Amino acid sequence: MAKLRERLERIVSEDPRAADLPGGPAGPGEKACLWRPEELFVYECDALTLTPSRPEIVVFPRSTEQVSRIVRECRTDGVPFVPRGAGTGLSGGAHAMPGSVVIELSRMRSILELDPHDRIAVVQPGVVNAELSRAAAPHGLFYAPDPSSQQACTIGGNVAENAGGPHTLKHGTTTNHVLALELVLPDGEVLRLGHRSAMAPGYDLVGVVVGSEGTLGIVTEVTVRLEPLPEGVETLLVIFADVVSACRAVGAIIRSGLVPSALEIVDQRTIAAVEDSVYAAGLPRDAGAVLIAELDGVARALPSQVERVRGLCADAGAQEVRIAEDDSQRALFWRARKGAFGAMGRLAPDLYVHDAVVPRVALPEILAQVCEIGDRYRLKLSNVFHAGDGNLHPNISFDRRDADELERVMAAGREILEVCVAAGGVITGEHGVGNEKREFIHLVFDEADLAAMEKLRDAFNPDGLCNPGKILPTPRACAEANPKTRGYDEVLQG
Amino acid sequence: MAKLRERLERIVSEDPRAADLPGGPAGPGEKACLWRPEELFVYECDALTLTPSRPEIVVFPRSTEQVSRIVRECRTDGVPFVPRGAGTGLSGGAHAMPGSVVIELSRMRSILELDPHDRIAVVQPGVVNAELSRAAAPHGLFYAPDPSSQQACTIGGNVAENAGGPHTLKHGTTTNHVLALELVLPDGEVLRLGHRSAMAPGYDLVGVVVGSEGTLGIVTEVTVRLEPLPEGVETLLVIFADVVSACRAVGAIIRSGLVPSALEIVDQRTIAAVEDSVYAAGLPRDAGAVLIAELDGVARALPSQVERVRGLCADAGAQEVRIAEDDSQRALFWRARKGAFGAMGRLAPDLYVHDAVVPRVALPEILAQVCEIGDRYRLKLSNVFHAGDGNLHPNISFDRRDADELERVMAAGREILEVCVAAGGVITGEHGVGNEKREFIHLVFDEADLAAMEKLRDAFNPDGLCNPGKILPTPRACAEANPKTRGYDEVLQG
Repeated sequence: MAKLRERLERIVSEDPRAADLPGGPAGPGEKACLWRPEELFVYECDALTLTPSRPEIVVFPRSTEQVSRIVRECRTDGVPFVPRGAGTGLSGGAHAMPGSVVIELSRMRSILELDPHDRIAVVQPGVVNAELSRAAAPHGLFYAPDPSSQQACTIGGNVAENAGGPHTLKHGTTTNHVLALELVLPDGEVLRLGHRSAMAPGYDLVGVVVGSEGTLGIVTEVTVRLEPLPEGVETLLVIFADVVSACRAVGAIIRSGLVPSALEIVDQRTIAAVEDSVYAAGLPRDAGAVLIAELDGVARALPSQVERVRGLCADAGAQEVRIAEDDSQRALFWRARKGAFGAMGRLAPDLYVHDAVVPRVALPEILAQVCEIGDRYRLKLSNVFHAGDGNLHPNISFDRRDADELERVMAAGREILEVCVAAGGVITGEHGVGNEKREFIHLVFDEADLAAMEKLRDAFNPDGLCNPGKILPTPRACAEANPKTRGYDEVLQG
Repeated sequence: MAKLRERLERIVSEDPRAADLPGGPAGPGEKACLWRPEELFVYECDALTLTPSRPEIVVFPRSTEQVSRIVRECRTDGVPFVPRGAGTGLSGGAHAMPGSVVIELSRMRSILELDPHDRIAVVQPGVVNAELSRAAAPHGLFYAPDPSSQQACTIGGNVAENAGGPHTLKHGTTTNHVLALELVLPDGEVLRLGHRSAMAPGYDLVGVVVGSEGTLGIVTEVTVRLEPLPEGVETLLVIFADVVSACRAVGAIIRSGLVPSALEIVDQRTIAAVEDSVYAAGLPRDAGAVLIAELDGVARALPSQVERVRGLCADAGAQEVRIAEDDSQRALFWRARKGAFGAMGRLAPDLYVHDAVVPRVALPEILAQVCEIGDRYRLKLSNVFHAGDGNLHPNISFDRRDADELERVMAAGREILEVCVAAGGVITGEHGVGNEKREFIHLVFDEADLAAMEKLRDAFNPDGLCNPGKILPTPRACAEANPKTRGYDEVLQG
């Protein structure tokens, strides 16, 4: 490994073209590789902290060519490699097995082009999601996918996980906004997929790479669509006595034909945690649930839509409707939602953010079951969720050092997924499968369906060296052919 | 072949479950197979009439199980098979080589489910596009993709070609509306891809099957998203002295941040053809170009948007702006656009509808070049196009029995595509690659990019029996391994 590390370091530090790279040469203190154990703590996991394990080397390429050369060196030595962005992923997609190399893309962070006429941006994978919208704002544009981690997460990571966010309801997930990609294949070859016109001929390989969690190659450039900033935005915060009424309001709003940009529900347990924290948003602590409804579009059309939403909420039993008077009040309303994960930090050292989808009509019943499961396993479980999409996020606060509690967390998680799938739902809405849920994909697809996915993966990543152990179990044949990828399953299971 | 035909006939006519199928048993006169040469004329081509060739057998399955059994029988005999819907495709995607079997899906035409609450429909592939919207209308819903052939084309064909239409500008193409598929693989296995929640875990195989032109398997069931019918619609017909001014207006409308549902331009040559035909729409015959702009959404928001569009058109030099006062006038406005292809039937027996995309800013210059190419080759060339998407449709009216003219049509077509790609465009916007443009895909992608597409195809369709000769050339290795697919290239080239 020391020899591989030296070769990887040379690829990055002795690149004769370093000065011409979009991000320029390495700054002071920017090492080409990290490898000392004490440097690697942060790379033991992403935001899924359940199964930490330490990679051997973390390398920081600064160009596509460097990524390609790094991949080829890893292959020469038969060493698995794992692409990584900001490490905010919630399903372990950037989880690296012992003996592997992490290819960390955070230093490929330039916006290469921003074309307001064609409404397109071309970015390196390490560009932070919120930075892109900030750069687009002076042109009256924004980048629509808005994961809760958008102040930290990168576009490359968003592509890997097909990230969504509160405004997915109206604007769709990452896959609806990516037009073209540059991809380094697991054999080091560099491809261009898709086209900035959104009308690439042939097979839609962009669509299949988005959401493939870094298992088909490493994305080194992303061409995205930008949207015009809406002329007007209206935000309502609606207080309900119970979560069932809030869900009923959401159903009525969707049925009415209105297309809100977001419909988010925060449950009573989350409200209490938020109000106890620095994110306190002035919510009544005894509220059963809060609905945040946002509408955007032509300014003149909004007042009548706000009145319709208000009326539908009243019919569903709303106790109080607040309407944001300005952007600062809008930000306050969103604090209850966006501050939820931060507020959980007060409850326990670890947070397991679950992610499952159910038909909207089943939301009230499933939520009751989810809470019952949490109580039965004596866990701190609360819910914030994208109600308009039927996308639940049951959050379990726990301490992974407590083996008994960890076991209860895992058992409760399995039951929650089973309940959601039994109701006609699926095991992930926007966080991906990663290593977290690869066993659970069987709940949704049968062997033949999964074999088709394996065919696809094996066509691009035949020996499984590229981000092994994600989405689907590493095929037996490959694990036997390459013992270095076998250990991963053992780590996860052991 | 006679023996294969008898086996295929038995699969369809002797199905013990026929009475329980969604479409019921075969009606009087509904044969299981056609095979006599005089019965097969219509199957010699789809709407691309350049290279007719006659299949051996056309079989009409009535269920997924029958499709699977038919595919297995074809494989047993090593016979290529081609799925087909209404035959309205414009790139030869349903083109069948001599010695092949056409699997015609028009008798799988039931709407299996229409769920207004979840806004989903589950349909068989032979359901006609416009029929689905008619069935959804009583629930206040519609199916958004609207190819010009929507009164005839089927959802299965739309999925194969990732069909678009005038309203693609706002609503996206077919791929944005398909949630799940049932697919019969080229080996007869039946898979379910995607999920009605739109949030299927794992690789997005739905995305890659949409637009794969029947080369990865045969789609036997489609779950689509339905959209709420807009509260209001406004349609403007704007007359310009020349097409450059019309394009300038489109650029200004897009830059303004407005999101019209359609922005279509009809050129002077098309106006003349339409006004000479039964589709006459009352347009001034000397108009240089007509822009049809449609806006939809919340009714109250529309008047101000109409005024903005009117103002931007006036600034761009509009001679006259007409605003539809009711649905019948709206239909009249659209006749100039939707009747264009029909009107062309007066000019010559054949029509080659081209399809290419250029950056919007390049539209005026490229249109001038396209017309120059048509004139230089002494061809009847006219343009109707999705201006908002930069999606050109140069239409060449010709007589394929005139060998010299046919040669000029082909040479002009090649030049048009080269000009569009040189301007930063692509070779197809919504009609697919088919057998028409598989040589031209090299203009957009290099060998490595195409090799990745081949990897994907070969993973699902390893011996190339399933719709050979589409999108990419049949790989040499496969053609050698299976001489029966080799003939196809010879037909196309010979």
